[in-house]
Amino acid sequence: MSDIFREVDNCVTAPQGFRAGVTACGIKSDSSINDLAILSSDVPCVAAGMFTTSKTRAAPVIVCQERLRSGKAQAVIVNSGNANCATGDHGLLNAYRMTEFTAKRLNLENEMVLCSSTGIIGRQLPIEKIQAGVAAIELSTDQGNAFSEAILTTDTHPKRIALEFQIEGRTVCLGGVTKGAGMIYPNMATMLSYLTTDAAIEYEWMKEELHAAVADSFNMMAIDGDMSTNDTCILFANGLAGISPIDAQHPEAETFREALRRVTQYLAKEMARDGEGATKLMTVHVHGARDKADAVKAARAITVSPLWQCALAGGDPNWGRIVAALGASGCELDQSNYDIFIGDVQVMKQGMAAQYNQDNARAAMAGKEVTISIDLHLGERKATAWGCDLTHGYIDENTLYTR
Amino acid sequence: MSDIFREVDNCVTAPQGFRAGVTACGIKSDSSINDLAILSSDVPCVAAGMFTTSKTRAAPVIVCQERLRSGKAQAVIVNSGNANCATGDHGLLNAYRMTEFTAKRLNLENEMVLCSSTGIIGRQLPIEKIQAGVAAIELSTDQGNAFSEAILTTDTHPKRIALEFQIEGRTVCLGGVTKGAGMIYPNMATMLSYLTTDAAIEYEWMKEELHAAVADSFNMMAIDGDMSTNDTCILFANGLAGISPIDAQHPEAETFREALRRVTQYLAKEMARDGEGATKLMTVHVHGARDKADAVKAARAITVSPLWQCALAGGDPNWGRIVAALGASGCELDQSNYDIFIGDVQVMKQGMAAQYNQDNARAAMAGKEVTISIDLHLGERKATAWGCDLTHGYIDENTLYTR
Repeated sequence: MSDIFREVDNCVTAPQGFRAGVTACGIKSDSSINDLAILSSDVPCVAAGMFTTSKTRAAPVIVCQERLRSGKAQAVIVNSGNANCATGDHGLLNAYRMTEFTAKRLNLENEMVLCSSTGIIGRQLPIEKIQAGVAAIELSTDQGNAFSEAILTTDTHPKRIALEFQIEGRTVCLGGVTKGAGMIYPNMATMLSYLTTDAAIEYEWMKEELHAAVADSFNMMAIDGDMSTNDTCILFANGLAGISPIDAQHPEAETFREALRRVTQYLAKEMARDGEGATKLMTVHVHGARDKADAVKAARAITVSPLWQCALAGGDPNWGRIVAALGASGCELDQSNYDIFIGDVQVMKQGMAAQYNQDNARAAMAGKEVTISIDLHLGERKATAWGCDLTHGYIDENTLYTR
Repeated sequence: MSDIFREVDNCVTAPQGFRAGVTACGIKSDSSINDLAILSSDVPCVAAGMFTTSKTRAAPVIVCQERLRSGKAQAVIVNSGNANCATGDHGLLNAYRMTEFTAKRLNLENEMVLCSSTGIIGRQLPIEKIQAGVAAIELSTDQGNAFSEAILTTDTHPKRIALEFQIEGRTVCLGGVTKGAGMIYPNMATMLSYLTTDAAIEYEWMKEELHAAVADSFNMMAIDGDMSTNDTCILFANGLAGISPIDAQHPEAETFREALRRVTQYLAKEMARDGEGATKLMTVHVHGARDKADAVKAARAITVSPLWQCALAGGDPNWGRIVAALGASGCELDQSNYDIFIGDVQVMKQGMAAQYNQDNARAAMAGKEVTISIDLHLGERKATAWGCDLTHGYIDENTLYTR
């Protein structure tokens, strides 16, 4: 299946009819950094989103959730540097005003414009700067990469991808961007992620497929166990590729599903790899679980164990910490019959230390990517989660963030 | 009430009829460090315990849980440097053998001896060293402090206390020790903690009171969110003070309850203060919660937010991270009506930034002890949790632990 997907440039503006534009409007103190961005489609899109389950969700999340009830949208405006969270009614008003400026600039209905914010919590947006910024933004079809950069906060590099593939003999494209870095333990969706496609998609099917793809990608990725107030993932489908709408009965539905799976998992892994202070990507496979929920619990618990994350940073195959994280995860296990592998070195067999060469175990921990595999021997369910190590860099990034 | 409790020396051997002894048997690589310790009573005790809820609980936890079904015990043997966890049937056999050596040495029934282990997971105990160590240990009534030191791992200092008070006109004593430092997010009991008293106590009442005291002390304390495989808390009551057994009807039951509350909360706070790499103790008060479970969830969530722990380390009053941790905690809250204080500086009012002086907020973060208070304005329930900051020291302690 791999050869039917071709990577192309321009991420979210790679699909036909999508444009983006960015500007430095002055929300961030370094006025040379772009901190405001718009992504829009030339025609209305079928759109669906997933959002944080936090009880302190930010104002823009509230606006998106309300407007996406229609299943339609045409543009999103995003600022970095300020989360517009814990900002009360005034913050909600500012979120609506961001969409109004954008709607006016693009000649759209207000209701067709979404908004996102990311950055420091508890400060009001400088709404006049945003108003001036929107007026200054010029949109074009080659600004996808600029968009992917303007939405970043503490990320060290942008996360972006676009795949081309054929459906009904026509070229279809799916693009995606995301930002991550800290406060990452998504539940329903991750920090900020936007996906665009020129496929036509039936709304109910799209919601289901987005849900399933996010469950196996962004929701299986963690930096630090802190769930954000602003987690957002939105998929826009504008139909300009000229295919008939994809739904469960469409003979090539599986092709789109696989593209969506690849794009979201690629972005999830890139976020984990670029976690604050991260030097290593960890992939945790749990199989043999009694049920899927157990497999998910077990895999995620290991990615957010600070002790194991420290061991990973040091390249120390201290698998007792995997045992502890697994035991505390709440997943069903048989203490006398589960196995743990670091890379392909089996360090635990049937609940006890396996016979293994310590040098081999250290070698399996030494690279930039470390894989942990756990077999619970209780059933056939499995899950994969991604995370990163915990280093001085994370501490340095986070001790004086608001100064 | 405070003047009726008097602090005395010797912690767990302060109550009448308790003895302790320690030795360096060679489990730890530095052979000058005591790593094996026995605590015993001259007469049989009523005894109750609370243990980790981990599904990968260590062998000694299994032995303690089994033996404490009788409600009786007379001694405990503890080693540091090796957790005897993930060691299978052989590990369980070794745990039983530790108790046999001790029973023989002290002329007790095997069933009256408990055991604990703490240290690295996944290695078999050097049982011959322990056998030789038990033979070498001399017990005496002034070795409580030595006991409190021999059970430590990465702790920087021992945690111990003893309180004297009067019941029925007689002097009664309650002593306690604990070890902590890392892998601390107890659920049912913390790392290792032993409490001794010469009060006579009725078993069922003792179990209930221990449960209640642990719920408000050890279970409200966290270093890093990692629950241990070996968490243990045991209370021994030998009755030698000569009072009638305390139960719910005893007119001075409240005095003992208060002593137990003080001892466990003192030890919990000392553990938090001495978390791996910790430079600051954080106390989180949540009040106005709809129910107790919500108050507990909210308070604990803040103590284990790595982002907030980093801000604490940097003295940065970045209360947006408290908002995020609170929102993700699952506690019920009204986004437009909750308040946050750092020390006595109100940083959030009704869900938004309060008017406050940033210098005052920084000052409230600057000391060795920082208090966060949250009012949810939803009810009358409250909870207090303790934690610490996250620093380079934690990372350094944990990157190469097994080397």
